[in-house]
Amino acid sequence: MQRFGSVVRLRPEMEQEYLRLHRAVWPDVLRQIQASGIRNYTIFLRDGVLFSYYEYAGDDHEADLAAMAADPATRDWWRLTDPCQQPVEGAAPGQLWAPMAEVFHTD
Amino acid sequence: MQRFGSVVRLRPEMEQEYLRLHRAVWPDVLRQIQASGIRNYTIFLRDGVLFSYYEYAGDDHEADLAAMAADPATRDWWRLTDPCQQPVEGAAPGQLWAPMAEVFHTD
Repeated sequence: MQRFGSVVRLRPEMEQEYLRLHRAVWPDVLRQIQASGIRNYTIFLRDGVLFSYYEYAGDDHEADLAAMAADPATRDWWRLTDPCQQPVEGAAPGQLWAPMAEVFHTD
Repeated sequence: MQRFGSVVRLRPEMEQEYLRLHRAVWPDVLRQIQASGIRNYTIFLRDGVLFSYYEYAGDDHEADLAAMAADPATRDWWRLTDPCQQPVEGAAPGQLWAPMAEVFHTD
């Protein structure tokens, strides 16, 4: 099992919309998260910064993320959530969520 | 079980020292983390920002954190790690790690 942490900013004028959407994430989006091997997925917010944490139970993370990106429901969902977000400085071009490095873990 | 996310900054000149310390966290510090009901504890870093995630298995989080703060090994450890960190803007006075709000979770 691998752990993944990522960070992105919220556009201030879109914060309430992002929160509203996440109070009722679509069942098909949740199903695709499961299907892509993502477990124990949490998103936190403070001062306009989102941090996400999840555990990956599969064996091809890149392929599972590609399957998610190809899923019609997920694509519709991202069409609503992407405009709420803006990358942190230094994020790769075209990337919203920027990966963080794990520097400590204890079970 | 409750999940906790927190954020703090690293002082740029202390980042390497923080990483060095966390490559070999003292066994007594890890033991106190366990004793205080903290599980699945991970710290991530990107661009001088630390994000921590853990799950709390006990039933009095405040008392368990106080026990940690009173533990001699943990106090010695924090004497080394605290000077590596600086609070984010808006953190409570005297607070290093600032709590984040959970805005989404799926198992």
